[in-house]
Amino acid sequence: MIVVMQAGAEEKEIQGVVARLEKEGFKVHLSRGTLRTVIGAIGDKTRLEHQALEAMPGVEKVIPILKPYKLAAREFKPENTIVEVGKFKVGGPEIHIIAGPCAVESREQLLETAHAVREAGATMLRGGAFKPRTSPYSFQGLAERGLKLLAEAREETGLAIVTEVTDQTKAEAVAQVADVLQIGSRNMQNFALLKTIACLGKPVLLKRGLSATIEEWLLAAEYILAEGNFKVILCERGIRTFETYTRNTLDLSALVAVKQLSHLPVLADPSHGTGKKELVIPLARAAIAAGADGLLIEVHPKPENALSDGPQSLRPEEFFSLVKEVVGIAKVLGRSLGRIPA
Amino acid sequence: MIVVMQAGAEEKEIQGVVARLEKEGFKVHLSRGTLRTVIGAIGDKTRLEHQALEAMPGVEKVIPILKPYKLAAREFKPENTIVEVGKFKVGGPEIHIIAGPCAVESREQLLETAHAVREAGATMLRGGAFKPRTSPYSFQGLAERGLKLLAEAREETGLAIVTEVTDQTKAEAVAQVADVLQIGSRNMQNFALLKTIACLGKPVLLKRGLSATIEEWLLAAEYILAEGNFKVILCERGIRTFETYTRNTLDLSALVAVKQLSHLPVLADPSHGTGKKELVIPLARAAIAAGADGLLIEVHPKPENALSDGPQSLRPEEFFSLVKEVVGIAKVLGRSLGRIPA
Amino acid sequence: MIVVMQAGAEEKEIQGVVARLEKEGFKVHLSRGTLRTVIGAIGDKTRLEHQALEAMPGVEKVIPILKPYKLAAREFKPENTIVEVGKFKVGGPEIHIIAGPCAVESREQLLETAHAVREAGATMLRGGAFKPRTSPYSFQGLAERGLKLLAEAREETGLAIVTEVTDQTKAEAVAQVADVLQIGSRNMQNFALLKTIACLGKPVLLKRGLSATIEEWLLAAEYILAEGNFKVILCERGIRTFETYTRNTLDLSALVAVKQLSHLPVLADPSHGTGKKELVIPLARAAIAAGADGLLIEVHPKPENALSDGPQSLRPEEFFSLVKEVVGIAKVLGRSLGRIPA
Amino acid sequence: MIVVMQAGAEEKEIQGVVARLEKEGFKVHLSRGTLRTVIGAIGDKTRLEHQALEAMPGVEKVIPILKPYKLAAREFKPENTIVEVGKFKVGGPEIHIIAGPCAVESREQLLETAHAVREAGATMLRGGAFKPRTSPYSFQGLAERGLKLLAEAREETGLAIVTEVTDQTKAEAVAQVADVLQIGSRNMQNFALLKTIACLGKPVLLKRGLSATIEEWLLAAEYILAEGNFKVILCERGIRTFETYTRNTLDLSALVAVKQLSHLPVLADPSHGTGKKELVIPLARAAIAAGADGLLIEVHPKPENALSDGPQSLRPEEFFSLVKEVVGIAKVLGRSLGRIPA
Repeated sequence: MIVVMQAGAEEKEIQGVVARLEKEGFKVHLSRGTLRTVIGAIGDKTRLEHQALEAMPGVEKVIPILKPYKLAAREFKPENTIVEVGKFKVGGPEIHIIAGPCAVESREQLLETAHAVREAGATMLRGGAFKPRTSPYSFQGLAERGLKLLAEAREETGLAIVTEVTDQTKAEAVAQVADVLQIGSRNMQNFALLKTIACLGKPVLLKRGLSATIEEWLLAAEYILAEGNFKVILCERGIRTFETYTRNTLDLSALVAVKQLSHLPVLADPSHGTGKKELVIPLARAAIAAGADGLLIEVHPKPENALSDGPQSLRPEEFFSLVKEVVGIAKVLGRSLGRIPA
Repeated sequence: MIVVMQAGAEEKEIQGVVARLEKEGFKVHLSRGTLRTVIGAIGDKTRLEHQALEAMPGVEKVIPILKPYKLAAREFKPENTIVEVGKFKVGGPEIHIIAGPCAVESREQLLETAHAVREAGATMLRGGAFKPRTSPYSFQGLAERGLKLLAEAREETGLAIVTEVTDQTKAEAVAQVADVLQIGSRNMQNFALLKTIACLGKPVLLKRGLSATIEEWLLAAEYILAEGNFKVILCERGIRTFETYTRNTLDLSALVAVKQLSHLPVLADPSHGTGKKELVIPLARAAIAAGADGLLIEVHPKPENALSDGPQSLRPEEFFSLVKEVVGIAKVLGRSLGRIPA
Repeated sequence: MIVVMQAGAEEKEIQGVVARLEKEGFKVHLSRGTLRTVIGAIGDKTRLEHQALEAMPGVEKVIPILKPYKLAAREFKPENTIVEVGKFKVGGPEIHIIAGPCAVESREQLLETAHAVREAGATMLRGGAFKPRTSPYSFQGLAERGLKLLAEAREETGLAIVTEVTDQTKAEAVAQVADVLQIGSRNMQNFALLKTIACLGKPVLLKRGLSATIEEWLLAAEYILAEGNFKVILCERGIRTFETYTRNTLDLSALVAVKQLSHLPVLADPSHGTGKKELVIPLARAAIAAGADGLLIEVHPKPENALSDGPQSLRPEEFFSLVKEVVGIAKVLGRSLGRIPA
Repeated sequence: MIVVMQAGAEEKEIQGVVARLEKEGFKVHLSRGTLRTVIGAIGDKTRLEHQALEAMPGVEKVIPILKPYKLAAREFKPENTIVEVGKFKVGGPEIHIIAGPCAVESREQLLETAHAVREAGATMLRGGAFKPRTSPYSFQGLAERGLKLLAEAREETGLAIVTEVTDQTKAEAVAQVADVLQIGSRNMQNFALLKTIACLGKPVLLKRGLSATIEEWLLAAEYILAEGNFKVILCERGIRTFETYTRNTLDLSALVAVKQLSHLPVLADPSHGTGKKELVIPLARAAIAAGADGLLIEVHPKPENALSDGPQSLRPEEFFSLVKEVVGIAKVLGRSLGRIPA
């Protein structure tokens, strides 16, 4: 790490920082410029010391050099991680599409959607049984009954089930049904929940928080990896910016950056990423062109009756077009669509 | 609500929206402009219909007119809510200062800080026993032992205890010690946690999320109010913006707006709001001048040894100055400092 | 427009708004809800009245219904606008790539780059002669000498010249050389400059401002269109967000949205959009997959010697790969690369 | 500056960077960590090299240590700069209030406002003759006629005139009337305009750009200072964030930070900073409490007839209250209100 001293730092203050660094086992280099003294410190330390040093008298700022995440870093594991979800391999040459309604609303709605997305080419079914809603007065999901319907949909179609965990006390119940446990944006830094689900041994789909930096996102993944669960799939779903025409700003630069910084697979969710169904297909193409390992797409048989996220949900026939277009792009990159074996 | 039809919407689509609105009990007004038809709908409905309507063919957008929060709105309760914390009244003419370390680190650190802030004029002691940290490798708090030390500090000083709940399964344990349960920024939309603590009956300090709009913040409060717990104290602690010189951007406009929109008391946290101790005192003055009902301030006897948030922590003597300056501002507004009775 | 009255608005206030609207020629619809009265006003008016109305007693907010831009809207002109730059047609089935150095630095640097990008498939050469730099101490461009070198490069290669105008008093001099006048992000709302260059009759490349909404961007285009110059090419170049790993956040959702809202061609600039050369190629692919009409790419023969933007500049061989990859994506969408006729 | 090499950087690449730094006159320190080599370079250089170095093979990032602005820094000039506007001294112990309408609309409107704000305690009159408007269809100001009215208002009241320059070709005409030349947010990085007006020798009021960092703001000031004009007054007027309830987010943390980083006086504009008149007075108090050297306030005799910014304009009687409240706060900080000598 680099410690930049204030312009007028006294010799005593400089020596204080040096002494402390050496006491904590760092090798220290001192560079005295005309205006400022800069102290380089070599050693393997966490951010903790970073903040404490910054509070020492005479210190202007401390600049960390090493990335704070370890297990999530490509430097730790150079080859791509492939997360196995049943027979499906996420992060390999095949792209995978997870599709389905925002929320499980009824048996009919779920099964109709499941059959449609399976036929179009999805390998996994999304659908919330427990919904985190901005307003307490909005539909909160079918809870346990929703889980049962998801299990039934899997049995009927062979689709793997991706569903969100929002409550520590329900995590086990969800894990009994889900093939992939989803952590939503609002819970990306709900560390208690991350630790709880990490231990359940299932693959985790970790969505980027609404205003999470790339570093914070990878540190959230690190919470799961540090529990010994390496089955983490990341998902870029749009960040909050000043632009209000779109619900969020799908950050494909971050998707590409994370593919370079980390070995973990990364999906894109253009449904939440834009909030408008007329933008979903072009952005789905763009995400695959950027190198996404797959997509998360909201599909509803009748978006105008959806209990949530209607405006961003595709109808089955629109989803069918999406898959077709996306497969064309994937081929250019030498990738193909992962499918359920017939 | 107002439904704006697309420029080329067909008569059939317009009638479809009208029929649906009428079916759901709305009174409908149709305005046909040269370019667009606009449908006004009067009735008491939630956002649910909003999204579903937006997904109907021919609809460009739906504009809600009513605020989505009810119990948190000043229209529901015109007079200020006063939250009683033991003998202290938050939200009344007295301002209250909650001070203490970011994390409880040791008996000595906590008690030394507690005595110092009490003497300076604080009525409540803050200190985290369970710390939500961005990195899994950072100090995570003393947990149950931290709670015990907080209880001891209260006994010694008479300060009320404000401490964070991060984990649903620990909520009851925290509530046995805490006088005020704090919900941190990262958990503002952890709705499972909000519901869990709402039922414990204790006052709740609800910090604004890092990128939460005013409306989302008040809806998070609504989750607690809707469980019958009206003892909610809001706290503005800075939002995430493009500016990186400060850790966050303390949004005092939001503080003033929320005081107007809601009846709930609102505090400011200039420590997290700026991340730099040299900015804390001027922003504390500003917050009180803007009309804050109190402050949340990080104080540490030796910030350079703090296990977290050292750079934004005041030393006891700096906190002493802060209180003095803040009291001067409060007087101009006809307010005084709430104190522990001698 | 819709005027939402405050919850407690008096009848007198409501009638005041109605009277004013009627006086200004609006047809008025009154909707009295339980909580609020809402006034719908039909008529063709500018935002001016919007703000004045909002300042009337009893008014809570005014919601405009019509888009404030007219000439830039697809509703005004449903078919795509094709901007002719010499023999090249931007906005048609062919995509066009504008490439070159950030700044013109020397004859050798410019000609070497020009030949390389022409060979790789670019049809236009970018290069700044007047550079808007954040610091007054940074290289400000070769000015008139840079313009001469650009003219020479065109003569040698047949590439059209795209260069930035930063100064009203230099606009004519630039227009004598440039085939396309670029307005940079920082000047997107420099309305005096927009009006000045609009009248010069040349095609204009209008970059989106760092923090401009889609609406503000199209209104900036409207300034040029309103002067009778319809040769406007838009360019998405990344917006400012909280994320600092990338220089900007390339907003491809906005690119797709603008293609739908407007008839104007839209390019993407992944060089400024990301600030990191290792992100440029994947994002260039993504932009074309999203539907961009072309790209703006920084290329430098020796990025490590570049006087500006080295870290985001591709070497000629990297640019060659970019074109190849991008052409593959374009084909899937039924588009081909515009080229200089041999 | 600090050069951080990539994890796998080769010795040849490290030596390449060292050789280049030494060639450019830097003293070099090499720190070899287990994972990364870090190169410290001491010498007085601009950012130019920063970018070029970052493009060298093997370099991960370059971290500048010195602030890029020189003349604007408090390190260059430790004592506060006092800008003299006629007999008024901005930046000293007295606070100054600049008030008036957004735009000059008519003789009657301007003179009525001028008399009212003078009486209430303002020393300077604001009012735009040339208005930068988001839409080309909005009122663009009275131009030269507006300037004449401003001159008349000064003659009648003794108020100094603060008015915006938006066009290089009109700068001299504006300077013949104005006592202070205002650069608006949208033009903060219109460097051609900054250079043009710097040379006119008048005091400059430099508003912070909508999404300008503190560093960019001070570098914009540096453009003026570097031309030899040290009469620069900064003005915080709100930044663009995700929050839409307020028009902008008034960033008082930045105001305090800039007072510490620079010697230049800093004002606050809570009218633009919030966009809502009911927020203006509390935020005006807060700004003064934070240490602002004065305020910029929009006042209009009939906000509901204002041709721009009605919703954020105070009526004269409201402005009168504002001054009274603000004076109370100023006293606590040992400051008083600058006034026109009777």
